Amino acid sequence: MHSNGDVFLGEIIGTAILILLGAGVCAAVTLKHSKARASGWIVIAFGWGFGVLAGAYTAGPLSGGHLNPAVTLGIAIDTGQWDQTPYYLAGQLIGAMAGAALAWLAYYGQFAANTGQDEEPLGTLGIFSTVPEIRVPWQNLVTEVIATMGLVLPVLAIPGNKGLGESGTTTLIVALLVVGIGLSLGGPTGYAINPARDLGPRIVHALLPIPNKGTSDWGYAWVPVAGPLIGGALSGALYNAAF
Amino acid sequence: MHSNGDVFLGEIIGTAILILLGAGVCAAVTLKHSKARASGWIVIAFGWGFGVLAGAYTAGPLSGGHLNPAVTLGIAIDTGQWDQTPYYLAGQLIGAMAGAALAWLAYYGQFAANTGQDEEPLGTLGIFSTVPEIRVPWQNLVTEVIATMGLVLPVLAIPGNKGLGESGTTTLIVALLVVGIGLSLGGPTGYAINPARDLGPRIVHALLPIPNKGTSDWGYAWVPVAGPLIGGALSGALYNAAF
Amino acid sequence: MHSNGDVFLGEIIGTAILILLGAGVCAAVTLKHSKARASGWIVIAFGWGFGVLAGAYTAGPLSGGHLNPAVTLGIAIDTGQWDQTPYYLAGQLIGAMAGAALAWLAYYGQFAANTGQDEEPLGTLGIFSTVPEIRVPWQNLVTEVIATMGLVLPVLAIPGNKGLGESGTTTLIVALLVVGIGLSLGGPTGYAINPARDLGPRIVHALLPIPNKGTSDWGYAWVPVAGPLIGGALSGALYNAAF
Amino acid sequence: MHSNGDVFLGEIIGTAILILLGAGVCAAVTLKHSKARASGWIVIAFGWGFGVLAGAYTAGPLSGGHLNPAVTLGIAIDTGQWDQTPYYLAGQLIGAMAGAALAWLAYYGQFAANTGQDEEPLGTLGIFSTVPEIRVPWQNLVTEVIATMGLVLPVLAIPGNKGLGESGTTTLIVALLVVGIGLSLGGPTGYAINPARDLGPRIVHALLPIPNKGTSDWGYAWVPVAGPLIGGALSGALYNAAF
Repeated sequence: MHSNGDVFLGEIIGTAILILLGAGVCAAVTLKHSKARASGWIVIAFGWGFGVLAGAYTAGPLSGGHLNPAVTLGIAIDTGQWDQTPYYLAGQLIGAMAGAALAWLAYYGQFAANTGQDEEPLGTLGIFSTVPEIRVPWQNLVTEVIATMGLVLPVLAIPGNKGLGESGTTTLIVALLVVGIGLSLGGPTGYAINPARDLGPRIVHALLPIPNKGTSDWGYAWVPVAGPLIGGALSGALYNAAF
Repeated sequence: MHSNGDVFLGEIIGTAILILLGAGVCAAVTLKHSKARASGWIVIAFGWGFGVLAGAYTAGPLSGGHLNPAVTLGIAIDTGQWDQTPYYLAGQLIGAMAGAALAWLAYYGQFAANTGQDEEPLGTLGIFSTVPEIRVPWQNLVTEVIATMGLVLPVLAIPGNKGLGESGTTTLIVALLVVGIGLSLGGPTGYAINPARDLGPRIVHALLPIPNKGTSDWGYAWVPVAGPLIGGALSGALYNAAF
Repeated sequence: MHSNGDVFLGEIIGTAILILLGAGVCAAVTLKHSKARASGWIVIAFGWGFGVLAGAYTAGPLSGGHLNPAVTLGIAIDTGQWDQTPYYLAGQLIGAMAGAALAWLAYYGQFAANTGQDEEPLGTLGIFSTVPEIRVPWQNLVTEVIATMGLVLPVLAIPGNKGLGESGTTTLIVALLVVGIGLSLGGPTGYAINPARDLGPRIVHALLPIPNKGTSDWGYAWVPVAGPLIGGALSGALYNAAF
Repeated sequence: MHSNGDVFLGEIIGTAILILLGAGVCAAVTLKHSKARASGWIVIAFGWGFGVLAGAYTAGPLSGGHLNPAVTLGIAIDTGQWDQTPYYLAGQLIGAMAGAALAWLAYYGQFAANTGQDEEPLGTLGIFSTVPEIRVPWQNLVTEVIATMGLVLPVLAIPGNKGLGESGTTTLIVALLVVGIGLSLGGPTGYAINPARDLGPRIVHALLPIPNKGTSDWGYAWVPVAGPLIGGALSGALYNAAF
């Protein structure tokens, strides 16, 4: 049993590392004057997956490493334990904001050089938060629900696992699952599959003085929050019933 | 020993996740308005492999996670145990159909936007089932037999393993074997190496109202069923004789 | 202790699977009418590495899975045990020939369609054996010696490991080492790093009736045999002295 | 407890292998007449990561495998043990120089064929050491500090781990963390994240008679030394305080 303080601190640190690497790989592939520019979807998917690896490993000893409100919700519904849920969620959102700010700092020069002309005419939001390719809210929501279930169901089925960072091999497998979800189901919406991963960086995008940053697209912000929460809840209920 | 009900349920859930991610990655790379469009063979192969990872991990506690009639057949021939074979096969086919329908749902907007003009003039079958590059049935059959043996022989040789999802490291290695088979032997036929993986989604392709979906190509459908079954049977017999 | 017969059989089966997948990925990336055509160096390197995974895993219970005369030589020099060396070497060469023939069979249609015009004007040897980019024998030899040491030294250093296929995690790590050697040191010569891997398929290339196959380039054949053997021997001696 | 001599020797061998593969993959992707030319960022990142795998595995039994002064510094600050630090640092710098020389030898023909015209007009330094895309020292320093913390914090958090090469799974995970850091945070500066990795090869670049090698850029050399050292020290202090 982790203490409430450890949970809160672990989720902040772990989620910050996750988003640092996740937003980082989006910046790496998107922005001019990056060595990784235009290096493709395989880089995006492995970058996010190894972000989970780094974040969950670091958070493991403190909080078990959920890093994702959809995972926290699925575990709570499956186990019926809700006591520490608020500490997980608060840490995740704060950590996601910190990670997004760190990614901006790591790519400060690249963001500063962004003229909004040729590379990112619609702004830099796609580095921070998800943007759907075809904007139809119910479709985007369904995609996020399905993709989240593809992550949370296996996480719950891992024997003895109630978190992403409990042990070496388990954490590695969860990280590769995230790579797989990205490769396979990221096409339509950019796979938030994690409310904190989308909302935290969106807040940071709105607050930071990024040149030519464009809109923070708040009209879409509810989809990558609601979809993963629904997917996580359905996974918890389904796992509890079937297994 | 898993109960018959657990086997049936586990294979449905596990195979559904496998095909959701597998058909999903084909949709991701093929369809317009997907962020992963044209991201290449490396994405296809890792997408299918991590689909095995996700599906086998989830099915593991319930059925051991075969997810593939060729694996089930090879194990039955090797061990001489046929009692639960029907439950495995039925679950796999149903799961494959469910997974294909979920992938269609996740990419609903992209399928709806498919005009059949520039991106997929021959229809969308290649997202669901395999289509050979050079259509010569005996050659395609030989390719599928060889590729399936390249998967099932190592699976049988894993110490103590009689399934894909028995333990963390084993499942990971099997998933990476599937990546390897795809990279190396997927070129001629698109590597069914699993009758359920090909037949289930083909049925769903025939039934679903997909715009500009083209033919379901039933004339070829026997090859990716017979080839993997022959490969699985040969693997079981060879393993039993040699090891 | 494996019996001589198990060693011989295990190395045949394991090396055949290795070369099936290794020559297979070269065919996949090179030949027209392959879905993986021109999919790049990352596909080549992971294809060969996962070929090692599949082959070593399968051979593991029978022979420990050397699959490579350079590994066998390094282990013999390190341990002073030479009794079974001939069985390892014979199995490896026979297995490599069998695997090359299987790869040709799996890509039969693609080989048959090769006109030798636009895709492979110099023939198909590069699918079977290594061809240097700049042909200077002493340089090519040095490259092969260094690359082989980069593989065999870590293999010897793995605690308790005297083979590639002894256990799950070890086999996985060795396979990824092979991926790494390919990515990093394959540029100049195509990284034979294994005499059987080069010589066996070259013999098969010379014997098989492949359309427009071009030369088997016997003048270069000694380099990818001698280089890896020197590298393996140096690794065994260095490891024995330093560790 | 490793002896001082083992630490020194292990770090030399391990870091030499790391840089052989790391500088090797940069040569592979950069130079003409390399089969891996222009194969992209995914190849760079996995090449360096698997270089860590090979080097740490080899060094593991002798020194635990730090291979990186930033890791050594972080561990020393966290544990308060400084006795062996000089042996680690000396071995790392010597090993990095040896590895860079070996990479040059492995790609001797490719370096010799470099005319400095079309492929590398600015010289070959980028194969040996890091070169920032946008040269603003404080920004480059910040990027290196953040990227190094993204590596060293998880390394310290691995249960029972005080090195990169202590056990199979741990070493694998650390190697994949390095892949992740490269994918996500390598864009601005090329991710030194290791003072020895940058300084050792830079010295070798200055000394070796490489045709058309261009400048060794000593004005920038302090950034990829200071940044990782600051990042490693901050990680050690933060880990000690938080965990």
